[in-house]
Amino acid sequence: MTATTRVDVFRIPMDGPGDVSGLVRMFDQKLAAPEHVVAIFGKTEGNGGVNDYTREYASRSFALALSSYLNIPVSAVEERVALVMSGGTEGILSPHATVFCRAPVEGRDQSEKRLSIGFALTRDFLPEELGTGVQVQETAKAVRLAMDDAGIKNVDDVHFVQIKCPLLTSDRVRDARRRDKTVVTDDSYGSMAYSRGASALGVGLALGEIADPIDDQAILEDFSLFSTVASSSAGIELLHNVVVVLGNSQTSCSDYRISHSVMQDAIDMDGVRKAFLDGGVIENGSWEIDSSRIVNVFAKAEPSPNGLVRNFRHTMLNDTDISATRHARAAVGGLLGGMSGCGAIYVSGGAEHQGPSGGGPIAVIATA
Amino acid sequence: MTATTRVDVFRIPMDGPGDVSGLVRMFDQKLAAPEHVVAIFGKTEGNGGVNDYTREYASRSFALALSSYLNIPVSAVEERVALVMSGGTEGILSPHATVFCRAPVEGRDQSEKRLSIGFALTRDFLPEELGTGVQVQETAKAVRLAMDDAGIKNVDDVHFVQIKCPLLTSDRVRDARRRDKTVVTDDSYGSMAYSRGASALGVGLALGEIADPIDDQAILEDFSLFSTVASSSAGIELLHNVVVVLGNSQTSCSDYRISHSVMQDAIDMDGVRKAFLDGGVIENGSWEIDSSRIVNVFAKAEPSPNGLVRNFRHTMLNDTDISATRHARAAVGGLLGGMSGCGAIYVSGGAEHQGPSGGGPIAVIATA
Amino acid sequence: MTATTRVDVFRIPMDGPGDVSGLVRMFDQKLAAPEHVVAIFGKTEGNGGVNDYTREYASRSFALALSSYLNIPVSAVEERVALVMSGGTEGILSPHATVFCRAPVEGRDQSEKRLSIGFALTRDFLPEELGTGVQVQETAKAVRLAMDDAGIKNVDDVHFVQIKCPLLTSDRVRDARRRDKTVVTDDSYGSMAYSRGASALGVGLALGEIADPIDDQAILEDFSLFSTVASSSAGIELLHNVVVVLGNSQTSCSDYRISHSVMQDAIDMDGVRKAFLDGGVIENGSWEIDSSRIVNVFAKAEPSPNGLVRNFRHTMLNDTDISATRHARAAVGGLLGGMSGCGAIYVSGGAEHQGPSGGGPIAVIATA
Amino acid sequence: MTATTRVDVFRIPMDGPGDVSGLVRMFDQKLAAPEHVVAIFGKTEGNGGVNDYTREYASRSFALALSSYLNIPVSAVEERVALVMSGGTEGILSPHATVFCRAPVEGRDQSEKRLSIGFALTRDFLPEELGTGVQVQETAKAVRLAMDDAGIKNVDDVHFVQIKCPLLTSDRVRDARRRDKTVVTDDSYGSMAYSRGASALGVGLALGEIADPIDDQAILEDFSLFSTVASSSAGIELLHNVVVVLGNSQTSCSDYRISHSVMQDAIDMDGVRKAFLDGGVIENGSWEIDSSRIVNVFAKAEPSPNGLVRNFRHTMLNDTDISATRHARAAVGGLLGGMSGCGAIYVSGGAEHQGPSGGGPIAVIATA
Repeated sequence: MTATTRVDVFRIPMDGPGDVSGLVRMFDQKLAAPEHVVAIFGKTEGNGGVNDYTREYASRSFALALSSYLNIPVSAVEERVALVMSGGTEGILSPHATVFCRAPVEGRDQSEKRLSIGFALTRDFLPEELGTGVQVQETAKAVRLAMDDAGIKNVDDVHFVQIKCPLLTSDRVRDARRRDKTVVTDDSYGSMAYSRGASALGVGLALGEIADPIDDQAILEDFSLFSTVASSSAGIELLHNVVVVLGNSQTSCSDYRISHSVMQDAIDMDGVRKAFLDGGVIENGSWEIDSSRIVNVFAKAEPSPNGLVRNFRHTMLNDTDISATRHARAAVGGLLGGMSGCGAIYVSGGAEHQGPSGGGPIAVIATA
Repeated sequence: MTATTRVDVFRIPMDGPGDVSGLVRMFDQKLAAPEHVVAIFGKTEGNGGVNDYTREYASRSFALALSSYLNIPVSAVEERVALVMSGGTEGILSPHATVFCRAPVEGRDQSEKRLSIGFALTRDFLPEELGTGVQVQETAKAVRLAMDDAGIKNVDDVHFVQIKCPLLTSDRVRDARRRDKTVVTDDSYGSMAYSRGASALGVGLALGEIADPIDDQAILEDFSLFSTVASSSAGIELLHNVVVVLGNSQTSCSDYRISHSVMQDAIDMDGVRKAFLDGGVIENGSWEIDSSRIVNVFAKAEPSPNGLVRNFRHTMLNDTDISATRHARAAVGGLLGGMSGCGAIYVSGGAEHQGPSGGGPIAVIATA
Repeated sequence: MTATTRVDVFRIPMDGPGDVSGLVRMFDQKLAAPEHVVAIFGKTEGNGGVNDYTREYASRSFALALSSYLNIPVSAVEERVALVMSGGTEGILSPHATVFCRAPVEGRDQSEKRLSIGFALTRDFLPEELGTGVQVQETAKAVRLAMDDAGIKNVDDVHFVQIKCPLLTSDRVRDARRRDKTVVTDDSYGSMAYSRGASALGVGLALGEIADPIDDQAILEDFSLFSTVASSSAGIELLHNVVVVLGNSQTSCSDYRISHSVMQDAIDMDGVRKAFLDGGVIENGSWEIDSSRIVNVFAKAEPSPNGLVRNFRHTMLNDTDISATRHARAAVGGLLGGMSGCGAIYVSGGAEHQGPSGGGPIAVIATA
Repeated sequence: MTATTRVDVFRIPMDGPGDVSGLVRMFDQKLAAPEHVVAIFGKTEGNGGVNDYTREYASRSFALALSSYLNIPVSAVEERVALVMSGGTEGILSPHATVFCRAPVEGRDQSEKRLSIGFALTRDFLPEELGTGVQVQETAKAVRLAMDDAGIKNVDDVHFVQIKCPLLTSDRVRDARRRDKTVVTDDSYGSMAYSRGASALGVGLALGEIADPIDDQAILEDFSLFSTVASSSAGIELLHNVVVVLGNSQTSCSDYRISHSVMQDAIDMDGVRKAFLDGGVIENGSWEIDSSRIVNVFAKAEPSPNGLVRNFRHTMLNDTDISATRHARAAVGGLLGGMSGCGAIYVSGGAEHQGPSGGGPIAVIATA
């Protein structure tokens, strides 16, 4: 990115997964132009699991709306805009979307680094490559490309990397077997974790958080390896990884900055506080958080795999009525909602190699 | 209570609703004597709804254990010990029980007020009285008796009133009809809310938070009337109200004190902070909470009835997969777990007339 | 309908709520023409409750596809095609749609009555009219119009009446209150039952199953009043009733016939058998059902309100984890799937005044 | 068993998992003597999953009641009575228990074979043995012992074998690892399937349905290997297998006989019919089932692993809101409830190697 860009972020509430009125209003009120939309991260009100169709419905609805504004086919929209929908608005979480716009502006690089966004795609993966070192390496490459796209040179300026990655379906597994290839698992649901995990390790590799080589065996096994900024979610609708890098760059003249930290566990208020301190929405030593400056908060949540939170047993993993990711989002959403003063925040479940075991990355975009 | 008493509180983890090993250990290690146990408040890992049998199972298990230690029948245990089980340990909440013990000690009244506990029962209610002004008035009387029992004279010294109240079953409804009497609702589940609500209003009346007379019509209608310290839960196993008052009194030489505040909504971190400040586990202006001094936290949670949390839509009331009270406990539990540094806290659902609409009371017991 | 018509029925499987490939295939293979589609009844794989967006997603997907084939706006599709989506494919139930096509053909009335379909709309209802006698009467009028449209003169030739009806939202309740009008309930979920019930009574009235006048108080109270052919489902997206009448008529030269009966309770195999006998897919005294002749089966299911099925307690109404309608669909689906040899059948929940209490109508379309 | 025995079976409804009043009534009315109770198979109203405490609660309640009648410790009751609780009463299924009593009577072997029951235990398993060929072989031995105990010589006279088997907990996995041993899985939930599967293969081996040797790799892999009479459920509370054999024997003078068949899939009405024909509750060619002669029906249900029921997609395995076993029990319960005319039947979930893939065994006890 040689020219200076302006990055804008809009948090729009959604009345349902098919509600794109917030986007339409943005355009009608000339707050943003349709051609500048580069990414939409949505929280939709499904269960966040295998049969959560609110993600697909919201994606199609946004793509259809943009297709109409841009006068291009829906498939062309999906190529130029990263549509990432995360299901599950448990507890106080509120269905909404975060719309990222990027426009070229005349000017020079800024003295202060401001919010920047870039994205890149990997090549399509073969079924046998999913959840393996191949996906790790290809993701790492894409992260570097997305950093370039965002005008970010220093890995320390990367604060959140959102990835959408494929999963294994029965068809894909059969295809691999016909070619005498082995897949990491033949369970579709299980493959989501492998794909998320390998993608997160790719982020860690690109950012120097993890050293090469990464053993295939480490994926979903060695949770001491993780990225502090990766957030990945698997979806059935693609064969490659979509990588969106969020960071700060002198090439951006945005009104916003992004900061991040890590929650060590699901109740790590201090971890959240660190991100808030870095983001300037709280002063050192103070209790008062300036919610009005927060545009959105982004976090990954998971039930601690060892069944404990600070030595007390949690029941999330043994609940046959409510899936563990729903529990985790509800709880972490409660804490982050309390701290940010708002339920329309991006809390996503399934944090394999994304932050430490039982914890996860936490990022904040706020006015600079 | 003329003599000085010593009140002790123990938080014991539970491996399941039938696990009473924590209680047994207390006795074996001589931390407390079985005859001094006056109340057990449990959080059990069921769904907290109509078909949550973990409450009944835990109650029976504790009663059976005490019956064996005290060498009295189970029914006699239930008369002398207030067994209050609240179902639902969503998110980071951890199954546990809080055991309250009260022993007479030699000595005089203290200069400082310390944790005190008292309890009282109402008379049995007729089906047609449940959820009406009769239940309000009788509960108010019992609260005053329980205050006496706790050695508390000033209503300002009452910080949490836990009530267990009856509900309407089909049998009880039929009984009323045979006598040509009207009941507030013939839906068992709905009657739980009426009974909780009327009980909470009774607390408010006794403590002067609400002025007499309270119109029958106000119950479950006028939510501007509420108590800031009432916490009530309905159960099928009784016909009267059990009232447990927790407060501070000079007649107690406990190591602990209790304080409380009110959460205005489910993300009201400031409300929690106020209770923590009063409880001395946090210093004014400071961020650092001294978790090690907290014995337990007690709160009621509910989904805001207007469907909004600070103007953002929540989805708890429209979720046909997960009951709204489970959502609410998970979220409020996440916030309180983060602030208190522990998941073994008492967060209970269904807060009609218990704190403001969408919010609820919050109390803390900590070392003085 | 003066001219003779040909009615065709297609059962198409769905891979998800957004999958319209079955419809596309029908058109591509010239099995039917887009302009002849008059109704689509879908079973979608959501929870069938308030937050089931699979219904809306499927409706929009079908409307969008037809809009493209017919080259008319989506809104125009919704006016000419009755899109009725019922959520919930529990147990062995399989997501699918039944597409009804009606084409004028040259010829005279047939000697044998064959499958016929007609539809009609009521006027828009005011909020205060929903769930009252007004909705009953207006529905009855629409049923008579739809019978005319279907070329059915005799009420005995009507075998299934599918209705889509409105519900009360907070907005609509507020609107009524501003005009000093009373609504039957201010609970959105509860209003669905009132609207379904009043609509079903309207069917019963039109078909002479229930005598006029019907007291407003009878709605959701006197379950001895019911229609044996009504199937109604409430949706947020409309303000009027859509009424689809299915029956047999000499004006139709369809290959199919429809028959019906009533299940007295959720395990009434004999009731199903009667409909099968009338439909000719089973011979009197025989055990063998000729599944190959069945096009689809349509039924309403509900948990018996008195908590009993043939004097044994069921737990559907007390389950806080799974909604009662999901339980009921799963069970009735299991029985009907076993009898019809297929899981792609239309079993819908919520049967107020639709069949006897705890039971419901059952209809079969089969080759004549 | 050399002497002739009398076997009685009682189906008692349960008002909750702690309700033993049906058992008490049996004894009070002298229908059976406490010392003759040999087995209780219960259906309790939990979710049937990992956190279903209704099984444990019901077991303890029955054990406690028997302990009081027999004047022996609870642990002694558990040694002499096979308490098998299966969680999950979805749809029309009704919570109840089947109590088996066996009393020695004077007399000779009968001319007709009548209902007989026998039970046996395996030795305790080491963690590394669970889900392996060792469990298969030891179970086979116990089945032969239980046959002896039941007075059954011919494997064709065995119609249902109920097994309760252990699972792997974290503690047990750690124990194995300390001794450098490998376990089949370290996931507790997953180990239940292994233990059930290995146990079922043991039944198949003992009865000659499967040929020795059975490869360890076949367990949970080769589903062409199965027993047509095995029904196993895993529980945390034991380390050995409890094996209960139900069949017909000339040593029994029971009023009842047992018959069985196999459901090829979840909607296999013909399979059920075969068992009913053999059981004499239906006449060949007839439709009429004589429900009054049925004491109880026993079946295993599972969602077809290939995602299809007779080529139509089911959604049980992809539902993140309701566990697949709950779906399966609801559906199969609906069919069996319809056919047997009663919801108080024993339908249990998780049918690995118990009947063909997607199907399961079905047995009927009826008056001879």
